[in-house]
Amino acid sequence: MKKLLFAIVFFPFLSKSQNSDSIFIRRIANEMLVNGKAYENLRHLTKQIGGRLAGSPQMVKAENWGLAILKQSGADTAYFQQCTVPHWVRGGVDKAVVTSIDDKKQKRTLDVLALGNSIGSGQKGVTADVVAVSSFDDLENRKDEVKGKIVFYNYPFNPTYIVPANAYGESGVYRANGPSRAAKYGAIGVIVRSMTEATNNHPHTGATRYTDSFPKIPAVAVGLEDADYLWQVCRKHKKVQVSFTTNGKFLPDTIGHNVIAEIKGSEATNDFITVGGHLDSWDVNEGAHDDGTGIVQTIEVLRTLKMLGYKPKKTLRFVLFANEENGTRGGLKYAEEAKAKNENHVLAIESDEGGFTPRGFSFTIDNARLEKIRAWITLLMPYGVYEFTQGGGGTDIGPLNRTLKTPLAGFVPDNQRYFDLHHARNDVFEAVNKRELLLGAINMAGLIYLVDKYGLDPNP
Amino acid sequence: MKKLLFAIVFFPFLSKSQNSDSIFIRRIANEMLVNGKAYENLRHLTKQIGGRLAGSPQMVKAENWGLAILKQSGADTAYFQQCTVPHWVRGGVDKAVVTSIDDKKQKRTLDVLALGNSIGSGQKGVTADVVAVSSFDDLENRKDEVKGKIVFYNYPFNPTYIVPANAYGESGVYRANGPSRAAKYGAIGVIVRSMTEATNNHPHTGATRYTDSFPKIPAVAVGLEDADYLWQVCRKHKKVQVSFTTNGKFLPDTIGHNVIAEIKGSEATNDFITVGGHLDSWDVNEGAHDDGTGIVQTIEVLRTLKMLGYKPKKTLRFVLFANEENGTRGGLKYAEEAKAKNENHVLAIESDEGGFTPRGFSFTIDNARLEKIRAWITLLMPYGVYEFTQGGGGTDIGPLNRTLKTPLAGFVPDNQRYFDLHHARNDVFEAVNKRELLLGAINMAGLIYLVDKYGLDPNP
Repeated sequence: MKKLLFAIVFFPFLSKSQNSDSIFIRRIANEMLVNGKAYENLRHLTKQIGGRLAGSPQMVKAENWGLAILKQSGADTAYFQQCTVPHWVRGGVDKAVVTSIDDKKQKRTLDVLALGNSIGSGQKGVTADVVAVSSFDDLENRKDEVKGKIVFYNYPFNPTYIVPANAYGESGVYRANGPSRAAKYGAIGVIVRSMTEATNNHPHTGATRYTDSFPKIPAVAVGLEDADYLWQVCRKHKKVQVSFTTNGKFLPDTIGHNVIAEIKGSEATNDFITVGGHLDSWDVNEGAHDDGTGIVQTIEVLRTLKMLGYKPKKTLRFVLFANEENGTRGGLKYAEEAKAKNENHVLAIESDEGGFTPRGFSFTIDNARLEKIRAWITLLMPYGVYEFTQGGGGTDIGPLNRTLKTPLAGFVPDNQRYFDLHHARNDVFEAVNKRELLLGAINMAGLIYLVDKYGLDPNP
Repeated sequence: MKKLLFAIVFFPFLSKSQNSDSIFIRRIANEMLVNGKAYENLRHLTKQIGGRLAGSPQMVKAENWGLAILKQSGADTAYFQQCTVPHWVRGGVDKAVVTSIDDKKQKRTLDVLALGNSIGSGQKGVTADVVAVSSFDDLENRKDEVKGKIVFYNYPFNPTYIVPANAYGESGVYRANGPSRAAKYGAIGVIVRSMTEATNNHPHTGATRYTDSFPKIPAVAVGLEDADYLWQVCRKHKKVQVSFTTNGKFLPDTIGHNVIAEIKGSEATNDFITVGGHLDSWDVNEGAHDDGTGIVQTIEVLRTLKMLGYKPKKTLRFVLFANEENGTRGGLKYAEEAKAKNENHVLAIESDEGGFTPRGFSFTIDNARLEKIRAWITLLMPYGVYEFTQGGGGTDIGPLNRTLKTPLAGFVPDNQRYFDLHHARNDVFEAVNKRELLLGAINMAGLIYLVDKYGLDPNP
């Protein structure tokens, strides 16, 4: 590209009040784009602290950093909200190797990661023939072959979904439920194809959930090159033996904290707008897009509103949630306390789909109100948000909706790149673009400003 | 992020003909997302051929590859359209160093790239004190200080433009016109702050244009870390001396080719829809986003329409333009031939703003027609395109508009990341995401299909 010419944007179609809103949102944008701290905050969180699973020493560091930075960013008050969190540890380096094919010795290493929450294999590891299945239906058809074997789920990440999160929603059940469903038929280990379309071989971890009625068996994820290889050899050969070793275990539950800051409301102090992301991450990466970006966007919204001298009507809460990845204990605690204190929660906003360029917000709210607040899209469109859809929210704010019927809004970035790095080693600082990150924060702040000013039943 | 739920998308608001269009565009999408070759084609173009400035041996390779791949992709016919192209060579490694500050010896290296089309400094290089200016206005105020000096333009890339291309449009004049404007007052060399907001130190090259009335002086770009350093020392100290060496020169004009493929129209063979990108790139990188992505998207549109057995009414032209970066000779030749042959050009589409996730198309067309074709946005929105704006096009298709008044459409991706790598060393294959690339091609094919079927005056 050599040169481009763009028209200056006017908004003749905005009403008078919308014009003042437009001007304030432009001030938010300018403050963030010129003086924004989100990117440098993310650098600290990812590079100085790193991966931070609930219960880990890094998570303690992250909580202390979070509290300090929320205070520095101008919070009227900032505090810890204690909760109990699970404490799973990987316990060592996960290893796997194809040991024989049709009883002929092999030594092909597979790059694996134990699934989060999974039990370890023991020092001897698990060694068994592989039953490769393409789906749960396939497993059911072959259930008699599974006893004493390793089940390999090779369910593909469907490339035809335009929103990759839909493919994740569909394939994620193999990670969550695959181990117990294989254990039901006597399998002694599980290998899962990673939930990604990435053109590399990184395995993607993430939480599995054992069903109490079946034995807990160790489980690992493989990247796509190894998955394709394993699938091919299992199709071509009768007996493919794999050996893998994992070391995962649960230590006793421990103490964690939601880190919370507030800007007090000037008119309705018991009316709350919550915005947040989750401070915890998996242990194998820097937790950059998942969910360091949601954390630093949340802090940036606070910093910017304070810097601009904004005095909200309602109380604004900025929450760094304690434990999204393997327990949702932070979100549950937050809702529990909100209920106990009889707080009136107007809206909760979550950013946990990556710090990519904005596309929209997805709400959980009645359709009539959604239709009304769609008038605001015009105000956010200059910053990339062009749609408000129904059905979204987030794992950490979900409990507020279930407990108090609080309306929810999930920030929806463009997520074409997300599953290339989600829960994998390459979810690192370098994968985040500064401007994309800030544009998300601009729209989050804009939405908070509008909800604070007009509530969720704005006059047309 | 742990899990997401998305509603299945229905389109009850589409008319009957729109429903059949929706189905065909979905077929385009599925074909590309499942069987797409664009990403692997890009890998070849960037990794096997690499940077390919007009006149270079790599450009000859690229032309031959382009012709072969267009044929393989199912073109009814594919051919070279010869044109004359400029032949600028960098001629060696560009070097710069801060040699003294207030006459005290220094040896701080600056990472520089000669501007494209610039003359070399000669073996001795250019050594002189630096006059650091923030703008052309600043230069005018200090014009009496400039004689015999190196002028350093430190005009910043404005971060408050939401579309970074606007900041590029504003700052690009320092690269294009800065050398001659400094030469007017007797400067003997120029250093330009790169047109980027990147958080690294890569210098960004790109074409400069000398004015015949002033001496041609050598000119280099510096990355942002070096620019900030140089600006600071020039503010703090009276005398900052820099020495730089460049080796650029023009060889005699040479032969280049637009590489053109066609799918013949079944009803109106002399009505043409052109789609293209530029095959040439700067020499310092792999020309991935600029404009390898436009090239492989163009080829992918051809491949997919043929694969689906689509028989266009109008003739579709797929053009890999010969020389966008430093001459536009390919685009000029294409328009000249179109006029000479009395071709009727319905629309020309260009992809040359990077292979990022789609946002829209920007047209050069009368407003009444733009309003009509906006009805099509509904059909493209599932694939990310949500706006048709006025005023866009592209450098290579511009001449068609000037010569034949052909309406233009520029593909508009999200370009937040573009100027981090534009004309810099990091514009490489790894910076391109497969899905984002394909989504662009899907929308380009969708637009071509709609224009072919309905023309630019569709019935409502």
